[in-house]
Amino acid sequence: MEAWLRTAINQGLIMITVNKPMHIFDTAIALEHGDEGQYKGQTSPNYANMVGPFGGIIGATLLNAIIQHPLRLGDPLSLTVHFSAPIADGAFSVEAKAVRTNRSTQHWYVELIQGEQVAAFATVVTALRRDTWNQLDAIFPQVTPAADIDPMPSIPSAIWTSCYEMKFISGFPGRPSSASNSSESLLWMRDQPARPLDFLSLSALCDAFFPRIFVRRPKPVPIGTVAMTTYFHADVVQLAEQGDAPVLGIARARNFRKGYFDQTGEIWSTSGNLLATTHQIVYFKE
Amino acid sequence: MEAWLRTAINQGLIMITVNKPMHIFDTAIALEHGDEGQYKGQTSPNYANMVGPFGGIIGATLLNAIIQHPLRLGDPLSLTVHFSAPIADGAFSVEAKAVRTNRSTQHWYVELIQGEQVAAFATVVTALRRDTWNQLDAIFPQVTPAADIDPMPSIPSAIWTSCYEMKFISGFPGRPSSASNSSESLLWMRDQPARPLDFLSLSALCDAFFPRIFVRRPKPVPIGTVAMTTYFHADVVQLAEQGDAPVLGIARARNFRKGYFDQTGEIWSTSGNLLATTHQIVYFKE
Repeated sequence: MEAWLRTAINQGLIMITVNKPMHIFDTAIALEHGDEGQYKGQTSPNYANMVGPFGGIIGATLLNAIIQHPLRLGDPLSLTVHFSAPIADGAFSVEAKAVRTNRSTQHWYVELIQGEQVAAFATVVTALRRDTWNQLDAIFPQVTPAADIDPMPSIPSAIWTSCYEMKFISGFPGRPSSASNSSESLLWMRDQPARPLDFLSLSALCDAFFPRIFVRRPKPVPIGTVAMTTYFHADVVQLAEQGDAPVLGIARARNFRKGYFDQTGEIWSTSGNLLATTHQIVYFKE
Repeated sequence: MEAWLRTAINQGLIMITVNKPMHIFDTAIALEHGDEGQYKGQTSPNYANMVGPFGGIIGATLLNAIIQHPLRLGDPLSLTVHFSAPIADGAFSVEAKAVRTNRSTQHWYVELIQGEQVAAFATVVTALRRDTWNQLDAIFPQVTPAADIDPMPSIPSAIWTSCYEMKFISGFPGRPSSASNSSESLLWMRDQPARPLDFLSLSALCDAFFPRIFVRRPKPVPIGTVAMTTYFHADVVQLAEQGDAPVLGIARARNFRKGYFDQTGEIWSTSGNLLATTHQIVYFKE
């Protein structure tokens, strides 16, 4: 969007009306603008988790505060979200500030506040991308195409799962692979209903992998993501190329110990571009 | 340290003098206490990089502000450092605040300020660790012992390299492996002179891997870490067991594209405990 147009919208001089109804994802991450960097939002029942909202939608909401900020330079490069407290259903406010602006990168800090407490916060880097030497070292796995796999039924107790189409190739939660005995899952994923991929939906997809402990260990225990970091490798061109086709997700854990485990994921485009890599540290009980 | 003793020291009622000279690492990350969460520090010539200080020492200094904070709960679980601007040689101030304190986790935000600008900032989770089910999924590689490998000579233009003993098994920078053509390095590493491992030195070691582009690409180009995240898997018992023996480091990149690449590392104890996993996003020119 051109700067004058964004400014005019922010100042309430122009309102753009689109006749198509908003996608449930866009409704869930919508923010009402206040003073610069100040927003109001509310949780969406569509993306409810067992307790509070799905973490991916909270991360996307915080990223959205940056995306919509009039001083933003460039596109998302990294996003670190801290889930610092339980988030209650209902209203919250968001405060975003540019901590430092350089020539081609910008560093952000953003808080989600509910009841005068910081329930979540994030740091973000946005950056201008330039053409350079490039080299993809990660390997795009050859797997069964999404069209040939049935989607997993959604999980009634985790409503947000109905907002994603998930087609498992391996590592279905609750069925540890006896062959490899590993925490790895491969699956095709996309928004449900389908929605063209952008940085916001990509950030949420990075948290849509089931916690690795549910793949690795037969016993279900309470879990919660403590903090997660996502690196965006894709630019707007690669995102546009992907459109609303399913992305390939790979996730695995390295270590489960003393109440915490790590989880690493890759998100690939249908044509073999690495769109994002993501890492999180997760609490588990017992 | 017991709480009353730390309080007494912070209030200037007691000073502890140890006759042994401080290790260069401890001198480099030392902080002078002001009001609660306020510190003064300065860069160390021992850990100078080509431009400004070695990033690992900046991250360790920011973590040290949390470690020394009187309100700290538990030990480091995660550390995300943003290198938001060049850091000049000389003095800086540090400001740390607990954003949220829960029953077993605490979320922190800390800034390094130089010339009224935020030159670096970090978010940290500290946590109490409890005994739980455990499972190590990552594989400890069988490699030549450190005692049988000659250390790499330090690099004169990067003075900090003289503060680490690095014994390469594979992936020496500037010599891309023609066999695998990969960005992976395996090496034994430790502080030089030797120093017992703790969370602070472990956090710095996580940034001591050479940038993967120097392994993967013969042409040297300017680089800079934009942001990095480390997850601490070790507890104080595992750190104490390791002592000052060399740790095994493994690092690789997944993707180099449009001016940025990612880098992932693992740090293993001599006996095969996964001590930390680390991830960063790095700028490169051309």
